[in-house]
Amino acid sequence: MIGPEIERLIQLLGRLPGLGPRSARRVALHLLKKRETLMQPLSAALGDAARAIKPCSACGNLDTIDPCSICSDPKRDHGLICVVEDVGDLWAMERGKIFSGRYHVLGGTLSALDGIGPDELNIGSLLTRIGQGGVREIIVATNATVDGQTTAHYLAERLSDSEIPVTRLAHGVPVGGELDWLDDGTLATALKARRAL
Amino acid sequence: MIGPEIERLIQLLGRLPGLGPRSARRVALHLLKKRETLMQPLSAALGDAARAIKPCSACGNLDTIDPCSICSDPKRDHGLICVVEDVGDLWAMERGKIFSGRYHVLGGTLSALDGIGPDELNIGSLLTRIGQGGVREIIVATNATVDGQTTAHYLAERLSDSEIPVTRLAHGVPVGGELDWLDDGTLATALKARRAL
Repeated sequence: MIGPEIERLIQLLGRLPGLGPRSARRVALHLLKKRETLMQPLSAALGDAARAIKPCSACGNLDTIDPCSICSDPKRDHGLICVVEDVGDLWAMERGKIFSGRYHVLGGTLSALDGIGPDELNIGSLLTRIGQGGVREIIVATNATVDGQTTAHYLAERLSDSEIPVTRLAHGVPVGGELDWLDDGTLATALKARRAL
Repeated sequence: MIGPEIERLIQLLGRLPGLGPRSARRVALHLLKKRETLMQPLSAALGDAARAIKPCSACGNLDTIDPCSICSDPKRDHGLICVVEDVGDLWAMERGKIFSGRYHVLGGTLSALDGIGPDELNIGSLLTRIGQGGVREIIVATNATVDGQTTAHYLAERLSDSEIPVTRLAHGVPVGGELDWLDDGTLATALKARRAL
């Protein structure tokens, strides 16, 4: 007795990450109550973004222009490339405003379980970029998960011939973190990587 | 460095119930990765629903036709009216396929705190429907919250002149529920309303 338009909307909303059938219904109802102020603008924003956004052919970032606004920014240091797994990780780095180089988005990690090998990731295009010269350092910023670490080690090996230094983000106690709540692995890594005060 | 299209999308997604800034970013990224299969269909479904769906002038349900498909269904018992707070509650009743009458959506509950009085709810239109005759019973299915109960009692009083029986959903132990986990109020209500086995 719910109309097909609402059924379809609930079904599509239920495919978003973090929304189950119940929360999809709740979101649909909220949208239907705010047709003018939220539902139509959201429909337009989704359509606009779907049409305008495409992956950057150089680094794999998502943007309306190609090369993306980071790759085409002359103020960015073209000698530094930060390798991340995903566009979400690139956004996290950019939110911090801590990095002034460029990025390279792998599009995932090596994973024996999911059958993802080096050919499924944007590693070839990274080697091409390095081959064009001018790169002084590759910063590997994959996640500190097993797959992320495996990918980092694989990259370090593939890039060992190029004589360009390959670095990775430091592991240790998160700023604001309490030792009591940390896992043993992080604590052991932080102890091994201790620095002069 | 995130484009304005993506920023706007994240901002709108963050206004959906249950999504904060972080999950809005996650949803936006998921959508951008599935532009063809999810993002464009969702944009179209939102647009279609926003254009087509309107409240039923008789009961307040949301549907593409007016009166809604429930009100205009000749197989529905027109002598029974189930009064619910919200369209979501109507959907819950319909999912159960347990009720063959029609509905009346109040659009909220009386609430002294939020300044919602009888005039803000669809009570006038309920009285008009009853005045048209043919109604045998009003089933009040407001939520079992303080505001819901207050609204139910108010309705019972307003309808006491009409000589139409006003009933409410039974309170008690939920089917599958364990006594140990129930609150005292529910348990006391269930004991008081005990029935012959």
